[in-house]
Amino acid sequence: MSAVNRVRAAYARIEAVDRPEIWIDLRPQAEVEAEAAAIDARVAAGEHLPLAGRLFAAKGNIDVAGLPTTAGCPAYAYQPEADAPVVARLRAVGAIVLGTTNLDQFATGLVGTRSPHGAVRNAHDPARISGGSSSGSAVAVALGIVDLALGTDTAGSGRVPAAFNGIVGLKPTRGLVPTAGVVPACASIDCVTVFARTLPEAEQALSFMASPPDRELPPLPQRAPGPWRVAVPPREQLGELDEGWAEAYEAAVRQLEAAGADLRTLDLTPFTEAAAMLYEGAFVAERYTAVGGFVDKALADGIEGLDPTVAGIITRARDIPAHRLYADTDRLAALRARAFAELADADALLLPTTPGHPTLAAVAADPLGANARLGRFTNSTNLFDLAAAAVPAGEVDGLPFGVMLIGPAFTDDRLARIAALLRPHTQLAVVGAHLTGQPLNPQLLALGARLDRTTTTAPAYRLHALRTTPPKPGLVHVGQGGTAIEAEVWTLPAEGLGRLLASLPRPMTLGSVELADGTQVPGFLCEPSALTDAEDITPYGGWRAYLSR
Amino acid sequence: MSAVNRVRAAYARIEAVDRPEIWIDLRPQAEVEAEAAAIDARVAAGEHLPLAGRLFAAKGNIDVAGLPTTAGCPAYAYQPEADAPVVARLRAVGAIVLGTTNLDQFATGLVGTRSPHGAVRNAHDPARISGGSSSGSAVAVALGIVDLALGTDTAGSGRVPAAFNGIVGLKPTRGLVPTAGVVPACASIDCVTVFARTLPEAEQALSFMASPPDRELPPLPQRAPGPWRVAVPPREQLGELDEGWAEAYEAAVRQLEAAGADLRTLDLTPFTEAAAMLYEGAFVAERYTAVGGFVDKALADGIEGLDPTVAGIITRARDIPAHRLYADTDRLAALRARAFAELADADALLLPTTPGHPTLAAVAADPLGANARLGRFTNSTNLFDLAAAAVPAGEVDGLPFGVMLIGPAFTDDRLARIAALLRPHTQLAVVGAHLTGQPLNPQLLALGARLDRTTTTAPAYRLHALRTTPPKPGLVHVGQGGTAIEAEVWTLPAEGLGRLLASLPRPMTLGSVELADGTQVPGFLCEPSALTDAEDITPYGGWRAYLSR
Repeated sequence: MSAVNRVRAAYARIEAVDRPEIWIDLRPQAEVEAEAAAIDARVAAGEHLPLAGRLFAAKGNIDVAGLPTTAGCPAYAYQPEADAPVVARLRAVGAIVLGTTNLDQFATGLVGTRSPHGAVRNAHDPARISGGSSSGSAVAVALGIVDLALGTDTAGSGRVPAAFNGIVGLKPTRGLVPTAGVVPACASIDCVTVFARTLPEAEQALSFMASPPDRELPPLPQRAPGPWRVAVPPREQLGELDEGWAEAYEAAVRQLEAAGADLRTLDLTPFTEAAAMLYEGAFVAERYTAVGGFVDKALADGIEGLDPTVAGIITRARDIPAHRLYADTDRLAALRARAFAELADADALLLPTTPGHPTLAAVAADPLGANARLGRFTNSTNLFDLAAAAVPAGEVDGLPFGVMLIGPAFTDDRLARIAALLRPHTQLAVVGAHLTGQPLNPQLLALGARLDRTTTTAPAYRLHALRTTPPKPGLVHVGQGGTAIEAEVWTLPAEGLGRLLASLPRPMTLGSVELADGTQVPGFLCEPSALTDAEDITPYGGWRAYLSR
Repeated sequence: MSAVNRVRAAYARIEAVDRPEIWIDLRPQAEVEAEAAAIDARVAAGEHLPLAGRLFAAKGNIDVAGLPTTAGCPAYAYQPEADAPVVARLRAVGAIVLGTTNLDQFATGLVGTRSPHGAVRNAHDPARISGGSSSGSAVAVALGIVDLALGTDTAGSGRVPAAFNGIVGLKPTRGLVPTAGVVPACASIDCVTVFARTLPEAEQALSFMASPPDRELPPLPQRAPGPWRVAVPPREQLGELDEGWAEAYEAAVRQLEAAGADLRTLDLTPFTEAAAMLYEGAFVAERYTAVGGFVDKALADGIEGLDPTVAGIITRARDIPAHRLYADTDRLAALRARAFAELADADALLLPTTPGHPTLAAVAADPLGANARLGRFTNSTNLFDLAAAAVPAGEVDGLPFGVMLIGPAFTDDRLARIAALLRPHTQLAVVGAHLTGQPLNPQLLALGARLDRTTTTAPAYRLHALRTTPPKPGLVHVGQGGTAIEAEVWTLPAEGLGRLLASLPRPMTLGSVELADGTQVPGFLCEPSALTDAEDITPYGGWRAYLSR
């Protein structure tokens, strides 16, 4: 896959998708193609560039040589002298940066709406927020424009947009990835993060981003072998969640359990109490330390382009007294001790990434309240010096739903291992030789499939007895004049479905089958040519009835 | 998935496949169904049984309560007082054991032919060996009869059959899994192993098998973050390999590199020199220590059922002098030091699991030579106290091809992480909207697909312009009267193909497409109903030509 072709596909994609607000500064295509041609030439000459052909974007608070660093505020812009180290590390192994992405100004928000460049619309539903503050980065990855994107995470800004856009966001242990060349938000707890569509891609990128780490790696006691121990809070401690989200979270819990994880309960209170401290307490003063002087002066000079919500948060932080910071630090230490005690006999805490996914309109109506709700589960992570992996875990009403695995510092690898157990699954409707008790059913079992339910197709199909070995039925969508055909719906790993397809012989095909309840799932169909010689057995209503005729 | 249904599917599968030689003792179906019903009841009552519904088999040298332990020699049989601890651990979490499996007698062989119960035929090609000594266990898993199977590994017996049957075989660090209740082969270096069809299933089983470990886990220095470092020997050090195997191994190396691994060269000589010592040196005397007295007496008494090859190896070991064992132990220590120096800056060594895959006839013609060749890469692992993961890595001429990741003791998790990078891939033929430069091509890129080649279908297809949005062509196999249609063949992870199918809208389908070179790969087809209104555009020879008409 030549880097040049990858670049061309990216710019075509940028044209095709309706999200210009992703970018603050997008490099000219000719310039990026030239860089790609140079990468292709180096690879052809035998150079080892493991990320050659991959494209990435950098959040607008990260230095990219040749582009202004703005942190989402045009008046703040400066020309960096060089790439931030994290950017340089990815470019050194062949990745190409397309540009800087939109964000909640000064990385102050979890919504993706607080920007003079416009609110970033969700990749899947333009009426919903992208999440933030790493809004543009997440949407650029979700839409397939780039393969990787850098974000930052203080209160959850590297994870919330991942969940809302159905992609992976890794928030590594603080200090593994250098924060030099990144505009600080809360400098003592900021992390640089990575977004990707799959966990292996994110992990691969992180391996380069963290080499070498900024922070000395302490010796880690070996974990005794045994099932992964995953902690979950009692339902009531999650608080109110969007409709369907409790069920989706529970499904993720069950999927981990089915994959062998050992579940135990933990008290989430120290986590949620610490979460409330991040913006209600004294810690937000650190944002003033970073950019408060600039904001005060810009407001006084009437400079345009300050996001009013962000400016309000930062200026209000000016007057927080230091004695309160001492008190809050003490309180946080006590909460941290309780949190660690809760985590002591677990490898990871599993939580929904957020309690819900608001619309742009809902955030506009309640900018502070809607944002505060979003940080309920993420705010405490960096306060407690923990690591987190945010991964997709299905959908609710067609919108991405995501969860986080959170664990102690330096357990990043373990979190990724556990997160990998939430590998994508898909459904499969079977009507013939793969039905329970039929000859090819063991093939389904061998691929890890589990029976979900027995049902019928929508009344729009006909069934034919194909002349195959073993005998198989051919299902055909006809619309009018069709019948509801007996079907079983199985759930299996997407990888298993891919493997099944790879070994599927003619004339069988797989396509979208409509079920009686109106849903569409992948299912067995057949090629048109197979119907020529095939008896129409639709009146039997299903393969089993036909076999026992 | 009820355990009872799983059991019924297993016994139906045993009937359907032609491999009775898998089993030494198969429990009666009624007895196993009753156990399954009890498991289902316990799960329904809320008990947490993570392996409920899973079936396993135990190699015939492992104690299973209620069945004789024979080690493949009927005269050796004894009734164990209890399950071996490793068996008990799997049953304790809900797995059900179907029976004991065939093996090279006394676990002495890598071929699977040295058994009075008959040579075990490969799961895919009955003319080829299954590999051994854990022959029946591997074939039972590969054929989908059971989900897991226990093996043992002294010289490679838990890995060779995995490679030959296209499944996963994990040889954990010695001492992680208890060997109590297992007939010793070379007691100081034996390991109990696990077979499964996928890496996650094998790892899950191992997590129960190793809880708690028999051996104290030393503190492990943290590995600095960075790409996985994989060591490979120079080609000439692999020696002669079966045809196509060097290329298949190279493809696995490339796949790891594409997944981000950092390759370095290592000198394989200390490994291959130690390998030669396992049977040519004094170490084989330990097999006499285990069962030599029994074999001598059985031969003297004219007892039937001794495998002649095995009996010869064991009795010849009687006369090896102890001074030679001292000399060989010194030599091994020197080789081990060299091997560790070679491994020092790598996380894992990648090797083909064996140099080739002989037929049953070839082994019958040269029982000792054919067997010795098979251990070239596996023999040194336990001598050096290393861990290993054997995983499938594609096919050569339709036969499974496998590789091993080998690493220092206690790095089992890391080896599995690296092995997971060799996730199954599949091909995909595209003829329309997914072609390079076409609107849906980014969807392919986003799924991790790479362009393999541009070609055409076999001259047996017609192409139609479907009334879809965006416009798409419908490819139809017609046989005679067909044309070769322009196509691109892409390679992508099987998981990506499954996800593509899960979102594929009507009327598109995926099925088997024949290419100009005669190979069949998954590709885009369409439902019959879509052709009704569709213009036949076959004369254009391809979608691009039609679009630019």
